[in-house]
Amino acid sequence: MAAEEKRRIRYAVIGLGNIAQVAMLPAFEHAKENSELVALVSSDPEKLRELGRRYGVEHLGSYDDLERIIEEARVDAVYIAVPNSLHRTMTERAARACAHVLCEKPMAMTEADCRAMIDATRRHGVKLMIAYRLHFEQANLHAVERIRGGEIGEPRIFSSVFGHQVREGDIRTRRDMGGGALFDMGIYCINAARHLFDDEPIEVYARQIVGTDERFRDVDEMTSALMIFPGERIAQMTASQGASDVSELRVVGTTGHIRLDPAYEYAGDLHAFVTTPGEGEKKHTVSKRDQFAPELVHFSQCILDGTDPVPSALEGLADVRIMEAIVRAARTGAKVELPPAQPPAHPTGDLTQSKPPTKKVETVNAPSPSK
Amino acid sequence: MAAEEKRRIRYAVIGLGNIAQVAMLPAFEHAKENSELVALVSSDPEKLRELGRRYGVEHLGSYDDLERIIEEARVDAVYIAVPNSLHRTMTERAARACAHVLCEKPMAMTEADCRAMIDATRRHGVKLMIAYRLHFEQANLHAVERIRGGEIGEPRIFSSVFGHQVREGDIRTRRDMGGGALFDMGIYCINAARHLFDDEPIEVYARQIVGTDERFRDVDEMTSALMIFPGERIAQMTASQGASDVSELRVVGTTGHIRLDPAYEYAGDLHAFVTTPGEGEKKHTVSKRDQFAPELVHFSQCILDGTDPVPSALEGLADVRIMEAIVRAARTGAKVELPPAQPPAHPTGDLTQSKPPTKKVETVNAPSPSK
Repeated sequence: MAAEEKRRIRYAVIGLGNIAQVAMLPAFEHAKENSELVALVSSDPEKLRELGRRYGVEHLGSYDDLERIIEEARVDAVYIAVPNSLHRTMTERAARACAHVLCEKPMAMTEADCRAMIDATRRHGVKLMIAYRLHFEQANLHAVERIRGGEIGEPRIFSSVFGHQVREGDIRTRRDMGGGALFDMGIYCINAARHLFDDEPIEVYARQIVGTDERFRDVDEMTSALMIFPGERIAQMTASQGASDVSELRVVGTTGHIRLDPAYEYAGDLHAFVTTPGEGEKKHTVSKRDQFAPELVHFSQCILDGTDPVPSALEGLADVRIMEAIVRAARTGAKVELPPAQPPAHPTGDLTQSKPPTKKVETVNAPSPSK
Repeated sequence: MAAEEKRRIRYAVIGLGNIAQVAMLPAFEHAKENSELVALVSSDPEKLRELGRRYGVEHLGSYDDLERIIEEARVDAVYIAVPNSLHRTMTERAARACAHVLCEKPMAMTEADCRAMIDATRRHGVKLMIAYRLHFEQANLHAVERIRGGEIGEPRIFSSVFGHQVREGDIRTRRDMGGGALFDMGIYCINAARHLFDDEPIEVYARQIVGTDERFRDVDEMTSALMIFPGERIAQMTASQGASDVSELRVVGTTGHIRLDPAYEYAGDLHAFVTTPGEGEKKHTVSKRDQFAPELVHFSQCILDGTDPVPSALEGLADVRIMEAIVRAARTGAKVELPPAQPPAHPTGDLTQSKPPTKKVETVNAPSPSK
């Protein structure tokens, strides 16, 4: 048995907020083939104690302890789920400590921060992947495949609404933490539009709604945008932290259309409704499953194999660049053009994988503590 | 029997294109209680002959004959379904000939034209109604009622996509006829947003796509817009004449949401999907029924009773005003503000009904020829 066991990537989870607790920590149970949880890092001693006990993790520490924990626990990779405004700092520190980085989206708050993160990980020869769980989700992949297969003709229109009511005081409503509807939720619509059109927008028009009630004193409750893609394709999207739960996207092609509803959830079934000529509407249901473990498995495998993770850091950068353009468009009330300066983020290409040798994985197999 | 028969409003149908042929001419069969078809006016002698025979209509004439036909056939009211660019002229001529006017939407191509139509009908003491069939359609009315009843909380977001493939050479792709996706289809989304929010937008952002293929050399294949409503509500919409058939709208409130899919069709069933707290999603189907006869019945009854038709001419004007703003926004790439200069178009108020006495109905009951 032992001889057959493969090496496992040893992870520290940094930031023990909602997404770590309800999604990523339990996901290690389904990623045992190449991943294990060995350390937890949080600013909250109570959470550290409790989650450490629950998941059998011995190496626990505060943000200040990050480098020591990486060293002591022989951490290969970190999963970063701290507030968005701290993604850059935490990525730079992890990279300096020679840990590979799987970072939650949005990658950072500015394009400059994203580029700094890419530079840091490149400099230290570690991989950087942004945690776009829907790139591993079957209903979304079904839509991608049907569209790329030409089944709805040429895609012309993308339309999406993503709504949710956040609680007063939620960090996702705090500007200093990188909150607001656009960065918290709009990124899903933007990423889906790019993914489904398989292209980058060249113009945006946008409006943001700020200060509607106590919850949204200094962040956007709602952001709506039009994104123009090459080939005269249009995406419209509205994301709201002050509306009831809704999570839908639609792509309309020249001969058919696809609707995902819900499109972005991870806590329930997802449905794809595909309408093609002659066949009418067909429903394709993907029952609830772990959308986070596949991210771990993929990232670990890339580390083990020395290959580039997809979605790469460029994927994260592309979305942040568009979100910054949307904020600018909303501020000025005028369209913002996006020069096609970026190398393509799809389908491959990871800037972090250019020159320096990838850090060797020192891990040997050990029983998963997350049992 | 004869004593019990009510007076019927005698109609001339002007313009025998698709909408008249497939929808309004057959609708008279379901509007016999107070409406009858007595004359047809068209530039196409062949259509006149054939449709005159089919519907048993004796009074037939070209556009040039309009005044004579109105006189000879003792026409009380005209239904105008000529190309959009001719709505104004035809309305003015009918009004001068003292016929009440039921005019297809869009009311006209410019706000100035709409105001001229209102002036003309007011001056001659005839009523003017714009043919918004969905104001009489049960699935749409269901959505209006649920929303006004507070069942989805406060409405925050409107989202709609309306797509269709037009044929090459279709008059709806001719600029000189008033074609294009915005005026032909976008008006449905705009009107629905205003109707469901029960308010007028104060800002628009827009993008139009022109010249994508041979069909769209000088009109918009596609128009997308964001409309901002008072109370920080947002509507996003995309209308396309170059995409597959899709017709959906969604209103997202603070506690629930409603989706109509299809939303704008008249040739099949319509479905309302209502999601409210606790109850989950409930589907409400309205099977295919005549959406045009109720317009005739309402307009005729208003004429008979001397009351104001709803949707009024102000309803038509409001949409045209927004469409002009959308065209301007798309041309400049910047937001266009709409001053709240208009008197409210909802729920009542018809400028045509102010001072002059309404024309007396001279009609007496006669058997419907459209049997």
